[in-house]
Amino acid sequence: MSKRVGTQTVAFYNPPYVKSYAAIAGPKEAEGPMASCFDALIDDEYLGQDSFEAAESMLLKNTIELAFKKANINTQDSNYIISGDLLNQCVSSAYCIRDLSAPYIGIYGACSTMAEGLMLSAMLVDGEFADVCANATSSHFCCAERQYRFPLEYGSLRTPTSQWTVTGSGCVILTRDQNIIKVTHATAGKIIDMGIKDANNMGSAMAPAFADTLAAHFKDTGRQPSDYDLILSGDLGKLGKELAIELLKKEGYDISGNYNDCGVMIYDLEEQDMHCGGSGCGCSAAVLCGDILKKIEDGTFNRVLFAATGALMSPEMSKQGESIPSISHAIVFEHA
Amino acid sequence: MSKRVGTQTVAFYNPPYVKSYAAIAGPKEAEGPMASCFDALIDDEYLGQDSFEAAESMLLKNTIELAFKKANINTQDSNYIISGDLLNQCVSSAYCIRDLSAPYIGIYGACSTMAEGLMLSAMLVDGEFADVCANATSSHFCCAERQYRFPLEYGSLRTPTSQWTVTGSGCVILTRDQNIIKVTHATAGKIIDMGIKDANNMGSAMAPAFADTLAAHFKDTGRQPSDYDLILSGDLGKLGKELAIELLKKEGYDISGNYNDCGVMIYDLEEQDMHCGGSGCGCSAAVLCGDILKKIEDGTFNRVLFAATGALMSPEMSKQGESIPSISHAIVFEHA
Repeated sequence: MSKRVGTQTVAFYNPPYVKSYAAIAGPKEAEGPMASCFDALIDDEYLGQDSFEAAESMLLKNTIELAFKKANINTQDSNYIISGDLLNQCVSSAYCIRDLSAPYIGIYGACSTMAEGLMLSAMLVDGEFADVCANATSSHFCCAERQYRFPLEYGSLRTPTSQWTVTGSGCVILTRDQNIIKVTHATAGKIIDMGIKDANNMGSAMAPAFADTLAAHFKDTGRQPSDYDLILSGDLGKLGKELAIELLKKEGYDISGNYNDCGVMIYDLEEQDMHCGGSGCGCSAAVLCGDILKKIEDGTFNRVLFAATGALMSPEMSKQGESIPSISHAIVFEHA
Repeated sequence: MSKRVGTQTVAFYNPPYVKSYAAIAGPKEAEGPMASCFDALIDDEYLGQDSFEAAESMLLKNTIELAFKKANINTQDSNYIISGDLLNQCVSSAYCIRDLSAPYIGIYGACSTMAEGLMLSAMLVDGEFADVCANATSSHFCCAERQYRFPLEYGSLRTPTSQWTVTGSGCVILTRDQNIIKVTHATAGKIIDMGIKDANNMGSAMAPAFADTLAAHFKDTGRQPSDYDLILSGDLGKLGKELAIELLKKEGYDISGNYNDCGVMIYDLEEQDMHCGGSGCGCSAAVLCGDILKKIEDGTFNRVLFAATGALMSPEMSKQGESIPSISHAIVFEHA
């Protein structure tokens, strides 16, 4: 039976269940309103490593290993670990997963990685290509700043629309063992580029991609925003969140009543001087795995639409005057 | 029914068929022994664009559009386009697929991308998550050199073990419409790192990953190398090819009689002064889509094991003294 629903959505009839999940976050996140949600907090940005890149890789490894420990499964018994990150050549993922002895599927979706990985994991588990599939991602403020903007030592000022790359990571393990949370749908996003060129205004660049995927999801499934207890974007931040509400209103969907953004939730924007909020692959991953999945488990939410968002530019393309292509994939979690 | 075979392999019982494929290659490849295989040859490294990055993106776009034209399918009717490339943040893929109006799944597998994408495409089509799934990748000598080594203008000398990044690309479209070539198995690779640190000796770094995946494939399926008409590695080059034969001999598998490497095939190594041969995502993609698939179609080969290989390092990690983690995924094509 075809699992396709409408033009961009698939439904899972042999549903993947969340077996376990884990989230770890950094020092800035430890000062924010979600500190108590994470499985562990890091106080040393280096995690005892010699470089920020090695530190991010260690952060991701610790998170993946914790999720496997909670699932009581050895990493080498995972059929696949799907992962990707922001660093050039996705090295956070490759350099830690080489130690985990499991087949690796590397993905790149920028900050949409958690949703892209969940979509693929759910397909592989539902399709019986995998009995156990892990999906993880991370980001780290210090190496992201150096790679995408300036080394921290320059002390560059941030613009009003800028976001703060979250030091954090999340991992979800899916299996077909019946459990409390199931994945029911995934809507794959198209690349949307509305011509925004300011790499310090990612929220504006990514909001149209989020709105496009959500509109497709609602059309494909015949659902309304009110069919969800929570609609969650990845890291649109404060400005992007406002734009997303406006854009979807124009499409005939009012999400204002039950919508939030991981980048807005993870920090106290005023108190922590966070400008537009958090960003990075680790932002939505840590919020999903630290807070949201627990709240589906305990019944606070019955049905959640999670749509991480990614800006697919590179500093090189920005230097060449290019705009920022963006993408968003959406996943539906339900209390089973 | 579980589609898992052994520990790392899946079998496709609802098999994906190759609907169409296309390959385009550059000026250096046009001087090599495979020139006549490609659908088109480029004589301007810029493809009329202002930068090498934009040129690579145009090369990939032309290849994807050609494959869709051959399939008589519009790009917007593709359920997914799966793609990735070597450039930071996979911009060759993102900046061309934004114009194609199809859901995008970004992957990163370095030079293993063609095999990784084929594995995912085949799963999505067999699992009925996709009716039409395209999978493409590219590389471009000029931007790869600048990003990974030095700008061409420096005129740096190449070491004896170095390989030449292929300017080329390939695209395969899979559907369930019965056709001449089917995909029957995929073996997902683990990350293998034997401690090689020389980024100009990729063949040695990647050969153990190729051998590991092939040994797993033979164990999982109970097959022998002689069950294949051709075993093809991605871009191990001359040295890596020799090492691969040795490593598999130690595992009890003699592939020497029916094995070749795309990086060795695409150039005349002596005549073109190509040192160890070709490399890059576009190397195995262009050889597979330019030559091998045609030869399965015309019956020259009945069954081919295609295993592209990727080095998952970054220049940053090399500077930090790290070794090169490598991966290889293997795909079985059969004349139906």
